[in-house]
Amino acid sequence: MSVLIVGSTALDSIKTPKGENPRLLGGSASHAAVAASFFAPVKLVGIVGKDFPKRYVDLYRKHKIDLSGLQVVEGKTFHWSGEYEVNMNNRRTLATDLGVFETFSPKLPALYQKSDYVLLANIAPSLQSHVLDQMRRPKFVVADTMDLWLNIALPDLLKLLKRVDGFVLNDSEARQLTKEDNVVAALKKIHKLGPKYVIVKKGEHGAILSSSAGLFLSPAFPLAHVVDPTGAGDSFVGGMMGYLSTAKGSIDSNIRRAMVCGSVAASFCCEGFGLKFTTRITRKAIDERVKHLEKLARF
Amino acid sequence: MSVLIVGSTALDSIKTPKGENPRLLGGSASHAAVAASFFAPVKLVGIVGKDFPKRYVDLYRKHKIDLSGLQVVEGKTFHWSGEYEVNMNNRRTLATDLGVFETFSPKLPALYQKSDYVLLANIAPSLQSHVLDQMRRPKFVVADTMDLWLNIALPDLLKLLKRVDGFVLNDSEARQLTKEDNVVAALKKIHKLGPKYVIVKKGEHGAILSSSAGLFLSPAFPLAHVVDPTGAGDSFVGGMMGYLSTAKGSIDSNIRRAMVCGSVAASFCCEGFGLKFTTRITRKAIDERVKHLEKLARF
Repeated sequence: MSVLIVGSTALDSIKTPKGENPRLLGGSASHAAVAASFFAPVKLVGIVGKDFPKRYVDLYRKHKIDLSGLQVVEGKTFHWSGEYEVNMNNRRTLATDLGVFETFSPKLPALYQKSDYVLLANIAPSLQSHVLDQMRRPKFVVADTMDLWLNIALPDLLKLLKRVDGFVLNDSEARQLTKEDNVVAALKKIHKLGPKYVIVKKGEHGAILSSSAGLFLSPAFPLAHVVDPTGAGDSFVGGMMGYLSTAKGSIDSNIRRAMVCGSVAASFCCEGFGLKFTTRITRKAIDERVKHLEKLARF
Repeated sequence: MSVLIVGSTALDSIKTPKGENPRLLGGSASHAAVAASFFAPVKLVGIVGKDFPKRYVDLYRKHKIDLSGLQVVEGKTFHWSGEYEVNMNNRRTLATDLGVFETFSPKLPALYQKSDYVLLANIAPSLQSHVLDQMRRPKFVVADTMDLWLNIALPDLLKLLKRVDGFVLNDSEARQLTKEDNVVAALKKIHKLGPKYVIVKKGEHGAILSSSAGLFLSPAFPLAHVVDPTGAGDSFVGGMMGYLSTAKGSIDSNIRRAMVCGSVAASFCCEGFGLKFTTRITRKAIDERVKHLEKLARF
C-alpha cells in the first residue's frame, strides 16, 4: 500500500560545524517522502516555485515518488537557512522566505483521496486539516508538528488532534503543549487531546510511544559523527509510516518495528547534509542497520 | 560473591518540587550499597561522625550490609543540602559540610582485601586509588565519579583510570573529560584513558556501554512521577555491580542485564526521597520491573 505525505517542500541553506551547503532539497515532506520511499510507494503533496531545480524533481522521481500532488507555481520556492552550534541540538534560523508557500492550499488529486496511510508532515495545522477534509476514510493518519504551531496556531492544532490517529512531537514541544515537565506524564495528557498513538521524539535518545498497548521505548541508532540533523524528525515519521503502510497485521503489532525503521532512516539522514546521504542508501542498508540496532539494544 | 563498595556516607537535606526532607541517609556508598544489597552481600567502606543516627546503622543492617569497614569517629557526619528545580535535571547545592569526611582515609579490614568485585563509588579519585592499593587482585573494579573531580583532581582521576576495568560517568562529564560533544565519540576517547568498559549515564534516557563487544544501549525505566533523583546514578552502579558479582559466566555475558538491573534500581530510588523508597522494595519488585522493562523495549 502507498502512503500519502503532505508537508513543506523547500530549499535549505544549512551551516553546521561540519560545513556549509546552500539550497539543498529540504522541507518536512521531502525528508519524510524519501525516508518512506524505501518501504512503500509515496504520493507527495506540496508546492514549489518555478525556480525549483530540475535535479530535485529528478531526485524525487529516482525514489519513485508520485508528484501529481506537487504544485509548481509562479514565484520562489520556500527557502530556509539556519546554523547549528557545536552542540547540534541548538540551531538558529537565519532566514525564512516563505515564497509560494505563503499561498499554499493543498489540493489532492482524485487518486490520492483514497489513500489508507496519511502522514501530515510538519506544516500549519490548518493545512493539515484541509488535507483530511479531502480524504475518504483513511485507515491511519499521523500528524507531526513543530513549536511554531504551538505558539501561533494552537487552536488549529487542537482541532486537528481530534481527527488523527497518531501524533508525533519532540520532547520540548510535549512539555510546552502539556505544561508537564515529565515526558511520561505529558504523553498521558496528550492522549486526552485525541490521538490514540502519541510519539515523543527525543533526538539522539530515541523516541517513546504511548498507546493503549502501553509504552514502547524506541532506541536511536548511535552515531559517532553527525553532519547535519536537519530533517531527522521528518525522516523518522516518514520511515515509520512507509514501513507501517506495507506491513501485514495490525498497527499495534507493527508500530514498534516501524518506529525503529524510522529511527534508522533518521540516523542516515544525520550523516549527510540535507538529503545527500539518505538519497544514496538502499533498503538493504536500512534493514542491516535495524538488525544492528536490535543487537545493540538486546539484553 | 560479595561486592566491596567504598564511597561517601552522608546526611542529605533535599528540597524538590515534591517536598523537603532534612538529614536523610545519603552519600554515594549508601545508595550504591542498598541497591547492590538486593543482589549480593555488600561490604561497605566509609566514614561517619558520632552524630550518625542509629536508625541509619539499623537500615544498613536490615540490608545485611557488612559495616566492619565503616569508620565511626569524633565529629560530624558529612552533610549535603541541595535544591532541585521543576526540571529535576537541574539542581543547586545549598551547603556542603564535609565534617569527618575531610580526614577520611579508607582502611580495608583484612577480610575486605580479597573481594573480587569492587565498586569505587563517587569520592575523590585519590581515595579511590588508596582503596585499590589495599586490594589483592580484584576480579572486576569499577569507578564512578562526578564533575567536581574533573575540575579539581583530574590528574588523580587519570591515574586511577589506568587501574580500573570499568568507568562510569554521566553524559556531561563525558563531554567535559573528552572535549567531545558527541557521546559515542567520547566513549571511544575514554577507552584510551584505560578502562575496557566505559558507561555513560544519561539519566531518564538510560545509559550507553562501550566495550570490546561493542555498544549497548540500556533503557531507563520510564517514570511518570519523579520525587527525588538524588542517588539515582549511585543506585545504578550499585545495582549493576551487585548483579555482576553473583551472575555466572563472563562479565561480557552479564553486563548488559546488570546495567538494566542497575537502571531499575535507579528508578525505584527516584520514586522517594533519599533512600526511603529503595529501602522498602524487594528483589522480587526489581525482577518484575526488569521484566516489564524488557517488554517496553522489545521490538
